[in-house]
Amino acid sequence: MKFCSACGASVSLQVPAGDSLPRHVCVDCGEIHYLNPKMVVGAIPVWEEKILLCRRAIEPRLGKWTLPAGFMENRETTAEAAARETLEEACARITVGPLFALVNIPEISQVHLFYRAQMLDLEFAAGIESLEVALFAESDIPWDTLAFRSVRFALERFFEDRRNGQYGTHAQDLSLLHSHTKEGT
Amino acid sequence: MKFCSACGASVSLQVPAGDSLPRHVCVDCGEIHYLNPKMVVGAIPVWEEKILLCRRAIEPRLGKWTLPAGFMENRETTAEAAARETLEEACARITVGPLFALVNIPEISQVHLFYRAQMLDLEFAAGIESLEVALFAESDIPWDTLAFRSVRFALERFFEDRRNGQYGTHAQDLSLLHSHTKEGT
Ligand SMILES: [Zn+2]
Ligand SMILES: [Zn+2]
Repeated sequence: MKFCSACGASVSLQVPAGDSLPRHVCVDCGEIHYLNPKMVVGAIPVWEEKILLCRRAIEPRLGKWTLPAGFMENRETTAEAAARETLEEACARITVGPLFALVNIPEISQVHLFYRAQMLDLEFAAGIESLEVALFAESDIPWDTLAFRSVRFALERFFEDRRNGQYGTHAQDLSLLHSHTKEGT
Repeated sequence: MKFCSACGASVSLQVPAGDSLPRHVCVDCGEIHYLNPKMVVGAIPVWEEKILLCRRAIEPRLGKWTLPAGFMENRETTAEAAARETLEEACARITVGPLFALVNIPEISQVHLFYRAQMLDLEFAAGIESLEVALFAESDIPWDTLAFRSVRFALERFFEDRRNGQYGTHAQDLSLLHSHTKEGT
């Protein structure tokens, strides 16, 4: 950020009164511009024993497999975001269930949420951001060509919980250096 | 948003190619500026049978009671945000436990998260954004002067789960018109 989005003047990095971190402050109108983490919300769409995955048609990780997920929009709920992304990327309609995984990636200021979801029918197809979309049994998941570590975490925990017959809510902090898993109750 | 934060030129609302929603697009450099929901992260700090609440010294809801919570910063995790806000607003140190509540407020594009937390000691005091900070037993919670409905939801579910001897992860969508509670497993 170099310019004030409110008035177009320059911004400078300053610690505002009563604050503890440097912020982009407008040198003209004084507006303080805060930068906040972004939420990426996705679904784990289930049909019988299988999971719906999308192969990415866009960077990053073009050609790799992912759960349908994307940046949450203003004025929607997390569940609405999960359903919208599934419709956009996989042309599939789902009923969104409970929150299943929350993954922090602080180095890029992102929080990823994945919801359990039930597919309403067998209609699905590659959306504009997908090369192909397919249902995978656990034994066929393309573990070596998954796009994101948060997707791997959600899938691993999902199959583990399914084997145990009880689904929880799982959390993980991802870093380029290490990863730390924190389990919920 | 009226001006491009990258180059200072004007922005106009347009639907970019391949997109479905109008975005603020720079008329000069072409940068697309996305607006995304903000996360508010807080804690439910517990000491024995009591919960730590803060009385707000700032608007909105000046003078009302709240759980320590605030906007998540870039480059921190959700648990770090909960601990930081508790330190800033209540001068209290906590161990952050599992995620307890997720509240969507789509009309203001916010997602509130509350974590269960254990106070490390009995040292606490009003931070700069608090008028006072105090421990409350369930029977003493100031239900009529709580600052936010998401705080009420988190506290109600917390005491309910404590009575039942098992804590879950709870979700709610709040609206000015109605509220809808979705329970996790
Ligand atoms: Zn300005
Ligand atoms: Zn520009």
